[in-house]
Amino acid sequence: MTINVTIFNEYIHERTDAHVKQIYPAGLHETLAAHFRQMPDFRVQTAVLEAPEHGLTAEVLSQTDVLVWWGHVAHDEVSEAVVERVQQRVLRGMGLIALHSSHHSKIFKRLMGTSCSLSWREADEKERLWVVNPAHPIAQGLGPFIELPNAEMYGEFFDIPDPDELIFISWFEGGEVFRSGATWRRGQGRIFYFRPGHETHPIYHNKEVLKVLTNGIRWARFRGNVEVTGIGPASHVKEPLEEIRSRPTPT
Amino acid sequence: MTINVTIFNEYIHERTDAHVKQIYPAGLHETLAAHFRQMPDFRVQTAVLEAPEHGLTAEVLSQTDVLVWWGHVAHDEVSEAVVERVQQRVLRGMGLIALHSSHHSKIFKRLMGTSCSLSWREADEKERLWVVNPAHPIAQGLGPFIELPNAEMYGEFFDIPDPDELIFISWFEGGEVFRSGATWRRGQGRIFYFRPGHETHPIYHNKEVLKVLTNGIRWARFRGNVEVTGIGPASHVKEPLEEIRSRPTPT
Amino acid sequence: MTINVTIFNEYIHERTDAHVKQIYPAGLHETLAAHFRQMPDFRVQTAVLEAPEHGLTAEVLSQTDVLVWWGHVAHDEVSEAVVERVQQRVLRGMGLIALHSSHHSKIFKRLMGTSCSLSWREADEKERLWVVNPAHPIAQGLGPFIELPNAEMYGEFFDIPDPDELIFISWFEGGEVFRSGATWRRGQGRIFYFRPGHETHPIYHNKEVLKVLTNGIRWARFRGNVEVTGIGPASHVKEPLEEIRSRPTPT
Amino acid sequence: MTINVTIFNEYIHERTDAHVKQIYPAGLHETLAAHFRQMPDFRVQTAVLEAPEHGLTAEVLSQTDVLVWWGHVAHDEVSEAVVERVQQRVLRGMGLIALHSSHHSKIFKRLMGTSCSLSWREADEKERLWVVNPAHPIAQGLGPFIELPNAEMYGEFFDIPDPDELIFISWFEGGEVFRSGATWRRGQGRIFYFRPGHETHPIYHNKEVLKVLTNGIRWARFRGNVEVTGIGPASHVKEPLEEIRSRPTPT
Repeated sequence: MTINVTIFNEYIHERTDAHVKQIYPAGLHETLAAHFRQMPDFRVQTAVLEAPEHGLTAEVLSQTDVLVWWGHVAHDEVSEAVVERVQQRVLRGMGLIALHSSHHSKIFKRLMGTSCSLSWREADEKERLWVVNPAHPIAQGLGPFIELPNAEMYGEFFDIPDPDELIFISWFEGGEVFRSGATWRRGQGRIFYFRPGHETHPIYHNKEVLKVLTNGIRWARFRGNVEVTGIGPASHVKEPLEEIRSRPTPT
Repeated sequence: MTINVTIFNEYIHERTDAHVKQIYPAGLHETLAAHFRQMPDFRVQTAVLEAPEHGLTAEVLSQTDVLVWWGHVAHDEVSEAVVERVQQRVLRGMGLIALHSSHHSKIFKRLMGTSCSLSWREADEKERLWVVNPAHPIAQGLGPFIELPNAEMYGEFFDIPDPDELIFISWFEGGEVFRSGATWRRGQGRIFYFRPGHETHPIYHNKEVLKVLTNGIRWARFRGNVEVTGIGPASHVKEPLEEIRSRPTPT
Repeated sequence: MTINVTIFNEYIHERTDAHVKQIYPAGLHETLAAHFRQMPDFRVQTAVLEAPEHGLTAEVLSQTDVLVWWGHVAHDEVSEAVVERVQQRVLRGMGLIALHSSHHSKIFKRLMGTSCSLSWREADEKERLWVVNPAHPIAQGLGPFIELPNAEMYGEFFDIPDPDELIFISWFEGGEVFRSGATWRRGQGRIFYFRPGHETHPIYHNKEVLKVLTNGIRWARFRGNVEVTGIGPASHVKEPLEEIRSRPTPT
Repeated sequence: MTINVTIFNEYIHERTDAHVKQIYPAGLHETLAAHFRQMPDFRVQTAVLEAPEHGLTAEVLSQTDVLVWWGHVAHDEVSEAVVERVQQRVLRGMGLIALHSSHHSKIFKRLMGTSCSLSWREADEKERLWVVNPAHPIAQGLGPFIELPNAEMYGEFFDIPDPDELIFISWFEGGEVFRSGATWRRGQGRIFYFRPGHETHPIYHNKEVLKVLTNGIRWARFRGNVEVTGIGPASHVKEPLEEIRSRPTPT
């Protein structure tokens, strides 16, 4: 079954920073897209901030099964209308993969209901992501941990709702830990946050990171129940399913 | 230890509908306040929609341990600035009790990240709330269930994130079920949603309902950790706790 | 990918009760097996209590991806050795579907850690199972609820650990509710409990019930991480991954 | 309100190992008891393995609100009858605090349903426990983390059910992480596992560790609902709460 994947990237660092450009010459969305296009079950398109409606028109979203989101320095430039549209689409079953600094994106914060803040440090330190949910399909094909030789640090407290499923916990050389891979359900939609990805390191060239993202997309695709009522406008159910006998006689 | 309780009520039905006025002559916030004032550990104040800043000024919120919220027909009239302020206060440890139709309030939807919709019916039917978490202090002092002879129906699917704790499930005479009592943590704050409360029935005169709300307020009061970083603005931790030795030599 | 399904049935009622025999002439395991054999991805075998080792030898279990369990009046006759073997196999990734009265089976109680008791009544009453997790693949292909015209009642409090995922809540005509479909992870294994199935009603001939069980089997098949350490015997990791510099100098 | 605390210790290391004896001359149960006895709301007694019924008679348990458990080398010597008795008492509302190597105690494994294994190393390395649930009363009065200069390492994968609440995550100098503080509900009982405590380090002399345990005991005391049915033997509810009209006419 084909999974329609849309990758959103604010696409700024790669054009303004020579070091980042060297790692992701066409933007990190294109690096990711090139990898995902190797998957026979994925159909991949990309969207960038500067496009009209950020490339996330109602039509694009309606045809997207899983949206991958990367933002960092321009969260505030994402329009409220697009954020609202993405949220409604998630509630109606679109999967969302939030990458790295997207913890502070408008859409992720809106779906979480919290500040989604954390502590951070750029010291090119070692990170090791430990698998803590060995039955989860997102952890398939990995060893007991993933090691990244140099990474930005994100540390606790990470101001998120308790995850529905916690899959990875990171160890950082500098002394912190972090809940690095976690999932939540919102309406009919599935959300996966994955920490690695700082633009100054070649994280999205790492085979295990790409394996996790590929697993994450397959997991996030809607396979649920389309018939539920109660999402969006409230449903006025005038007729009861069973006879009501408790109603007091009007006086 | 004193718990400062603020009860917010939009206070509209009780002034526009004779039947509701009969049940709650001074507004349902005053019925609740009168009951809570009997608790030696509660200090109670009220706030209404038409007051400046809806009575929820920065000063009032800073002195509130637990905010009880009732809204129904005027959710849209609550200002965004007040909603933002209440959310930030919850993340910083204020408890929130969301009553009945407040499932559709701006503040509850913002903290949940979902539509918080449901199905509903007004047929004065019987409701029975079953306790499904017998270790929870909110269920203390009750029997195995609470029975309400006549209630508005709220039915599944209730579009909320999976609760951290599910305490009550309702049975409705007309054939539906509903997750009627549930909790979530957001930042340092604790949230309790409790379903009963339709303004056309004397729900807030019911002893068991009042018992649940009293328990809920005591449970929602902050008793956590005030020292965590990471809520609100991100924390830039320049100095690592441990020496970093993985940093590659600049070339 | 083929899923090896083993259906265990104590197979007693169907041989001792004429009414049950009429519904399940060859045993309810064979009714289920006949249905599951229509699935191109399922390879199905059955096991019964009176077989040596209850048909659940080490070899059978090692080749089983998902074990479906039905027991009712003979839970105590299941040998401890087989229970231990099934538990170890679940921790190592075998899925388990516990049906109806299997809430009181040794294996389910052992995996839950609780009494798994509940209240019950045989009054041939109506049951309606509401979907409360519309993103879950186990709820795929259903409407907003399943209705069973006549069922045994199971009511709360159901003494289980809070489920990882709650999928169905039942409404009963006689006034109770029940968490009827729920999942838990134990080690690498996934567990799904599904309530319907009393032997005196033709529940396993119901198309929607069979749909749920088929979904459940596909969901419970292991697709996780095989490389984790820490299940079974503890792992003594003599050599640290990083140099230890805190060790005090021996005095 | 008085909390009756019973501390169980297998009490072996302290008598057979000179180094451990130096740290805990009268046994670590007595070190803990001496501290807890300073709390005006605690009434403390101790129990050791070699006592009849390990000091955990039916009478002692019936008068215990919270049981603190420490075992390491003699888990197998705890009698099945006592384990069964403790489990039943937990389901009926006794709190349980499982310390350090008690992850492998019979009672903890029985309540979890898993192997409760993990990886470990004795290298006197540094440990830092980060608070990840800042609203939890168990984290009250601490900073953002606890630092232990020298500790035994416990690493993931820790084979436990996903906790109801995850409160602490440990960072270890040698490169691992661990879910070091977590809670679960079983029946009416609350369980808290807390990792620190290796007998060769003076962990139970550490003020922050003692603060966590004191908080844990207060949290684990039963304050729930005593009226629930469904724990222990199943409840046969012969008479429905509502009239059943769906029963087919017998033919």
